Amino acid sequence: MSEFARVRLRKNEERRIRQGHLWIYSNEIDTSISPLKAYEPGQPVVVEAANGKPLGIGTINPHSLIAIRLLSRNLDTQLGARWFKKRISHAQALRERFFGKPYYRLVYGESDLLPGLVIDRHGDVFVLQITTAGMERLKPQIITALEALYSPRAMVFRNDLDSRKLEGLPLENEVVGVLDEPVWIEENGTWFELPVESGQKTGWFYDHRMGRRKLQALCKGQRVLDVFSYLGGWGVEAAVAGASEVVCVDSSAQALDYLERAAVRNGVIDRVTTYQGNAFEVLPHLLNEGERFDIVVVDPPAFIKRKKDYRNGMEGYKRVNALAMRLLRSDGILVSASCSHHLPREALREQIQRAAREVDRMAQIFDQDGQGPDHPIHPAMPETEYLKTYFARIWLER
Amino acid sequence: MSEFARVRLRKNEERRIRQGHLWIYSNEIDTSISPLKAYEPGQPVVVEAANGKPLGIGTINPHSLIAIRLLSRNLDTQLGARWFKKRISHAQALRERFFGKPYYRLVYGESDLLPGLVIDRHGDVFVLQITTAGMERLKPQIITALEALYSPRAMVFRNDLDSRKLEGLPLENEVVGVLDEPVWIEENGTWFELPVESGQKTGWFYDHRMGRRKLQALCKGQRVLDVFSYLGGWGVEAAVAGASEVVCVDSSAQALDYLERAAVRNGVIDRVTTYQGNAFEVLPHLLNEGERFDIVVVDPPAFIKRKKDYRNGMEGYKRVNALAMRLLRSDGILVSASCSHHLPREALREQIQRAAREVDRMAQIFDQDGQGPDHPIHPAMPETEYLKTYFARIWLER
Repeated sequence: MSEFARVRLRKNEERRIRQGHLWIYSNEIDTSISPLKAYEPGQPVVVEAANGKPLGIGTINPHSLIAIRLLSRNLDTQLGARWFKKRISHAQALRERFFGKPYYRLVYGESDLLPGLVIDRHGDVFVLQITTAGMERLKPQIITALEALYSPRAMVFRNDLDSRKLEGLPLENEVVGVLDEPVWIEENGTWFELPVESGQKTGWFYDHRMGRRKLQALCKGQRVLDVFSYLGGWGVEAAVAGASEVVCVDSSAQALDYLERAAVRNGVIDRVTTYQGNAFEVLPHLLNEGERFDIVVVDPPAFIKRKKDYRNGMEGYKRVNALAMRLLRSDGILVSASCSHHLPREALREQIQRAAREVDRMAQIFDQDGQGPDHPIHPAMPETEYLKTYFARIWLER
Repeated sequence: MSEFARVRLRKNEERRIRQGHLWIYSNEIDTSISPLKAYEPGQPVVVEAANGKPLGIGTINPHSLIAIRLLSRNLDTQLGARWFKKRISHAQALRERFFGKPYYRLVYGESDLLPGLVIDRHGDVFVLQITTAGMERLKPQIITALEALYSPRAMVFRNDLDSRKLEGLPLENEVVGVLDEPVWIEENGTWFELPVESGQKTGWFYDHRMGRRKLQALCKGQRVLDVFSYLGGWGVEAAVAGASEVVCVDSSAQALDYLERAAVRNGVIDRVTTYQGNAFEVLPHLLNEGERFDIVVVDPPAFIKRKKDYRNGMEGYKRVNALAMRLLRSDGILVSASCSHHLPREALREQIQRAAREVDRMAQIFDQDGQGPDHPIHPAMPETEYLKTYFARIWLER
């Protein structure tokens, strides 16, 4: 049995944990028995129910609203490199059921029972995000585990996330190993170079892979618009799958540089055009120019980052979907995504419908998608689900 | 402009219609201007807002809680065979984007702007369900339209649905044409014979096709259990895709006869076994016998048909999922579906989690599915969405 310090919960506060959740809030701790100031940020602890029965092993951060993240229900767990190797290998086995090549999210935090840790595997370069003091403290063991399992060329810590502030952690990036060559990955038969140190998040969004594959099955001979394209996950993959022409819109000139390099390497640059600018300005411009498309993909950054953004965010989703519909030829296809955890799936559907009424179109949702199998959902933690994509046929009722 | 009788709505009651919904409840009609007894069941009408502005064409049933179903917002619509041909062809075009062969749900009611009408296309045999007095009255035009478009061998009206009682319609089946040969359809490379006159619903459940395709991609060399198999949509397709062994459980001996004929025709009968009986009895029996599987599919009939079934239904989903998990080898796959409209997607996820905790397993949801593209969702009508499927990895935390 573990020799970690104990933390006692208040009466009945073990319920959510028994149901499978991994978070304990600071007000659920019995501070008369376990005063928060007795613990260091990130310290491993044994969590006990009010009656003293141990529930599992976690790490504590006395300064965080989410005070404890449970790491294991096995009380003999040692949080060493060996344990990380086992957890990471178990996560890898799920990915290998689906992906033949080493390009995927290897670890997706809570869903892989590694709260506070995200690892993307870009071939022999691993990009990590650590978001809790507990995981930060275990960083050496994580590095040892990855070295033992994969002998990585480089481990890039993209620790420039705002959420680290809530844990009292510094925002800083770090490279362990050597990052002396461009990092290329393959997704759905398409190669992309990733700006792992300066791009968005870990450099790539593997979560949409399955949705993009569905787009590929639909886009042969079609004229496609990819709004908020970033590196061209949707757009360049559509071109590779036979789209007759693809227009990609993004506000980042750097992203579009990378996108064009990908289009060259995949031999589709003659069918790919980029527009640098704000989508809410570029789309009206394309409309005025009389441009029309068979398929429009709208995959914006999270318009709703916090609950208070809800109302404005909803309007944003409605506006951009309405613009997308106006850019579609009749009987076209809208692919509309949202990665805002705070926007429920149904609420995105409602914005699509509001947009359709605004521009007097009919919509039929013929498919839905979400995060791919390398971003599994923990069924006890709705917090682990965030991505939704609707595929809709848009037409004019005659 | 239409010469149909008018129906005036009460003040503000046009709001939902303007948002795109197609139903008008009887208490939304201004009966001082439009007394319900003035209309015949199924009569076509022009619906007007309180200020007299016409909203569209529908059919009325003064005896039904859902009094009016809107058929078109175009006021010049004539509800003749020509109009049905246009609507049905438009629906067909969506299906043809996905399915190369004529086996699919051709018309899915409200989502194809044909409220009260369902048509399944099984090659040259069409199975129809008519659930409103309005559609019943238009039956001759529907038959004419189908004859003009497809020259069907037979049109089978499966009008033995309880919901017809709400509309004051008789429960009766009818065959127009000749049904003198077995009806075979193909789905995901697998042939099935359908009991179109005596089977469940229209004889087949096309709605799960895309989910079954996902199972096929996972099941090579795996031992699969298909619970509530009906004709073997999941199980026989898994065998065709290379499952090493498939066990199918269903309470209907007739369904299992058809299933075995399908297994023979597809050349997989040596790998398919059937168990006739109640799943809640057969599964414990299989457990006692020490049977274990790599993949278990749980696709029950709707346990929640009405809202009052909710609590019992939830327990049913939990129980059967817990049994399924106990029948899985560690690191197995659970495919868990529900077709209960009244069970939200999240509630099914919760039952999976409750089951996992009950049998002390961990679960990772790595994919989700829903009704296929021949069962599109009308984004203004949540009522058109009902099917959800979770794919989860189930294992023992060590």
